[in-house]
Amino acid sequence: MRFSQLFGKTLRQAPAEADSVSHQLLVRAGMIHQLVAGVYSYLPLGWRALRKIEQIIREEMDRAGGQELMMPVLQPLEMWQETGRDQAFGQGLFVLTDRRQRKLCLGPTHEEMITELVKRNVQSYRDLPLLLYQIQTKFRDEPRPRGGLLRVREFTMKDLYSFDADEAGLDVSYKKMIQAYHNVYHRCGLPVMMVEADSGAIGGKDSHEFIVITETGEDQVIYCQSCGYAANLERAQSIKPQGSPSGDLLPMEEVSTPGQKTIEEVATFLGVGPEQTLKAVFYVADGQVVFVTIRGDLGVNEVKLKNALGCTELRLATEGEVTGTGLVAGSASLVGVTGLRRVADDSITRGRNFVAGANKPDTHLRNVNYLRDFSVDLLVDIALAQPGQGCPRCGQKLLVTRGIEAGHIFKLGTAFSQLLGATFLDKQGVTRPVIMGCYGIGVGRLLAAVVERHHDDQGIIWPPSVAPYHIHICSLAGAEAAAEQLYLELTAAGLEVLLDDRDESAGVKFNDADLLGLPVRLTLSRRTLKSNSAEVKLRSATDAQLWPLEGIAAHLKELIHSLQQKQV
Amino acid sequence: MRFSQLFGKTLRQAPAEADSVSHQLLVRAGMIHQLVAGVYSYLPLGWRALRKIEQIIREEMDRAGGQELMMPVLQPLEMWQETGRDQAFGQGLFVLTDRRQRKLCLGPTHEEMITELVKRNVQSYRDLPLLLYQIQTKFRDEPRPRGGLLRVREFTMKDLYSFDADEAGLDVSYKKMIQAYHNVYHRCGLPVMMVEADSGAIGGKDSHEFIVITETGEDQVIYCQSCGYAANLERAQSIKPQGSPSGDLLPMEEVSTPGQKTIEEVATFLGVGPEQTLKAVFYVADGQVVFVTIRGDLGVNEVKLKNALGCTELRLATEGEVTGTGLVAGSASLVGVTGLRRVADDSITRGRNFVAGANKPDTHLRNVNYLRDFSVDLLVDIALAQPGQGCPRCGQKLLVTRGIEAGHIFKLGTAFSQLLGATFLDKQGVTRPVIMGCYGIGVGRLLAAVVERHHDDQGIIWPPSVAPYHIHICSLAGAEAAAEQLYLELTAAGLEVLLDDRDESAGVKFNDADLLGLPVRLTLSRRTLKSNSAEVKLRSATDAQLWPLEGIAAHLKELIHSLQQKQV
Repeated sequence: MRFSQLFGKTLRQAPAEADSVSHQLLVRAGMIHQLVAGVYSYLPLGWRALRKIEQIIREEMDRAGGQELMMPVLQPLEMWQETGRDQAFGQGLFVLTDRRQRKLCLGPTHEEMITELVKRNVQSYRDLPLLLYQIQTKFRDEPRPRGGLLRVREFTMKDLYSFDADEAGLDVSYKKMIQAYHNVYHRCGLPVMMVEADSGAIGGKDSHEFIVITETGEDQVIYCQSCGYAANLERAQSIKPQGSPSGDLLPMEEVSTPGQKTIEEVATFLGVGPEQTLKAVFYVADGQVVFVTIRGDLGVNEVKLKNALGCTELRLATEGEVTGTGLVAGSASLVGVTGLRRVADDSITRGRNFVAGANKPDTHLRNVNYLRDFSVDLLVDIALAQPGQGCPRCGQKLLVTRGIEAGHIFKLGTAFSQLLGATFLDKQGVTRPVIMGCYGIGVGRLLAAVVERHHDDQGIIWPPSVAPYHIHICSLAGAEAAAEQLYLELTAAGLEVLLDDRDESAGVKFNDADLLGLPVRLTLSRRTLKSNSAEVKLRSATDAQLWPLEGIAAHLKELIHSLQQKQV
Repeated sequence: MRFSQLFGKTLRQAPAEADSVSHQLLVRAGMIHQLVAGVYSYLPLGWRALRKIEQIIREEMDRAGGQELMMPVLQPLEMWQETGRDQAFGQGLFVLTDRRQRKLCLGPTHEEMITELVKRNVQSYRDLPLLLYQIQTKFRDEPRPRGGLLRVREFTMKDLYSFDADEAGLDVSYKKMIQAYHNVYHRCGLPVMMVEADSGAIGGKDSHEFIVITETGEDQVIYCQSCGYAANLERAQSIKPQGSPSGDLLPMEEVSTPGQKTIEEVATFLGVGPEQTLKAVFYVADGQVVFVTIRGDLGVNEVKLKNALGCTELRLATEGEVTGTGLVAGSASLVGVTGLRRVADDSITRGRNFVAGANKPDTHLRNVNYLRDFSVDLLVDIALAQPGQGCPRCGQKLLVTRGIEAGHIFKLGTAFSQLLGATFLDKQGVTRPVIMGCYGIGVGRLLAAVVERHHDDQGIIWPPSVAPYHIHICSLAGAEAAAEQLYLELTAAGLEVLLDDRDESAGVKFNDADLLGLPVRLTLSRRTLKSNSAEVKLRSATDAQLWPLEGIAAHLKELIHSLQQKQV
């Protein structure tokens, strides 16, 4: 490709709204363009990179025994009503009415549809197992599209669905997919961590996410170096530290705490650690106020709380809603409270003689103890795990890292097949529902993750496997003819080459080469031509070398090959 | 691929609603599945064929200098209101409202969006020409989806857009695309005719269709073998035959024609040919009744009429609407009529002394002559061309053939760039609108056209270039192990092989092989193994040969290669 003919201009400045590194760099490199919030065009260079990732995914799905097919975007809304997921997705579902007044939605995912297809094409255990996938455009009306390609409303997704005759079969399919996913990330140059995850609106019982480890990621992963335990922060378990020394339960006593409201203020004022206090937090779950209590050194994990309550909407209560219950914000505790739904984290059992609110202004209680002084409706783990706490498996200290979710897999079991009647006859002639799994990778999100992981201040540093082209020729003044000839020679040899043949200065060309981030830069100038050579510089390195032009195509092929080998 | 694991079942019977050969065969072969009207899933075999066609198209677009990109499906409706095409597409546009109450539509085509993209990325004549394309899912809410993949509501389309600095540049781009399109059809094994076409809702001034010649096609093409003229029936011109002998204009006289209403009845009753009569046809154009007259031997071409009237909606008037004008259906003519809009085909000037209605029941007039006895508001060619009439270019007899529209190209000129402000600075520094063309191929439609053209009573006969697999191994009783070994050997050699390893009879396997239509069938049985050979049969031939198993992979590679060479 000649730069002078390439569609897409590089920009000095990223647009103001670009809120992630990948967004900034992909826009500046002329690779993507936003049409409306969360809806992007891919320009030629961006699209080439995306198609390379797509092809890596396709090859790994095929290798695992996947069969590619293509389901439509338009889906009858009734199908979603049958499984109740029109409610679960809510406003996230794009719904429209066709000219015959039929309600259709744009597929945000395809569990319903693939289950219907399988229902028609599977009769016997002999037709199983199946791994079916597509690489297709999905639509989700995200409330807050952000991060460029990281959270969008229209996106390419690889979604694979597994169908098995029994749980053991599902385990095999699940393991195959885990291996295939690891292969995909490895080939894209991305270190990942597989973590336990929440299954959200997709449903199902067991679920893992693949997190690409990057400092800029919006997700947090809690993990243990010792035993390999890893979980999304939303779901992570931990051994909570002991709250206060053992000893007798002391008599409860009131203390005056004028103006002291936060845990920190109260603890300091009374000379205790925050782990010796009880925190009160008020939520509204599906319209009802809930009184949540947790040890003062811990935070509430809203995903765990939501799952524990089994509600569909959860938010913090407003101050008005709290005072509406008759309680005093800043001095509230469960002592003497009965009218509200009461939930407590199990940390309140790891300690005794806590400080808690007295349910009157500027007053707290010392020596409050669970069961003796108050009770709850639900005692469960709803705490955010924290680095430094103990690993729930081996007890070693947990660590935390940031990353980007770039894959999510679920054991669905029979949730969909039972609702939609996708059954088969087993060896004994008994009708059973097929057992399902689903496995998704957002392709554009993976592209963004590659850029988040592989860049520097000057621009992108593409791993060779997904680079739009491999070689960037900078043709400097006086070397135009030689550069053109080299371009033709390398292209004829099957190399993927971008030739910067624009009428621009060396500085502009080098800056754009760094911004676009192709793995190998070749510079031809009057100076290099004097020694019949080209300057070869890896985007990932700082030093350059002069290579003789004679036989350079073969040497470059070897170079690209070796870069791909040691990519990760 | 092993048939026992393949997703998609063959069917003995096509579904009742399958109204085209390709629909019947693709459904029976387990290659496609309809979800709702005009919305299909592609199962693995169908999807493989589609992807092969897609790749052929991609290669030819790239070879012509096209740059692939990807634009979104979701488009803001305002963009369509700016060009007025929301009206032109009308109910064909799927419209929805997002969670922020913004109106979006699903792209039925992408002229507006690409023009916006080009506006941002093109400043100077140096940035031109550009050929930009995508292979993407389009949505059109067709009033009558039919013919399986031939007319659907959701479909994959290759749409390329050209941008040039002047008309000469557009001519070059247009010619490049014509060549690229011919290459695509040729590689898909499809004979086509390029015909002049109507430009419809896309707009623009010059337009051609590519018609795949098949007996089962729903389109008709009028063409001339002598000079190569060819046009869609909707648009074809012709030299109309002379209507009646020359001679003096005779005095008009009334004749009684009791019960005679149609042209045929009146002409027979009065002993004249239909070419000596004038036919009256009533239409309603945008709500207004229009009186159309044409010589009795010719038919009205509604597309020409619609273009001549410049209306957006045209339909035949109801009998009530005709009598509402005070005229008598079956005895109407323009003699004495003034209150209505009057349109005539220019055939009324090729002849004299016509028979026409007398505007009273059971009565006609002889010797009616244009200008002397009646006048019109618009005299223009609105006749359907007919085979046997003269070629408008060379006068030789026109022929007709049936086919399937499988490509449509348009010279758009500056229609979109002017409305949306996509301009560039020319060499003289003058701001000019870019000059555009657009070029579409429906990929699924092309797949259907391949099946319409290449099949017999038993099933599909895939051209090797688009066949899902090249070789179909029928493994018969007693040859299972040898067939499995051959399958592994051929697959390892890079051949695309489907192994029928199902527990089915030879009859079922042969029938399915014919239905699926892979180019080469290899049968292994106890009998063939006795001579250490396999039976080789081309799907397109009736006879079979025994080939030794020794070295068969290399020979099959040669066979496939030679089949691809002589495919068209």
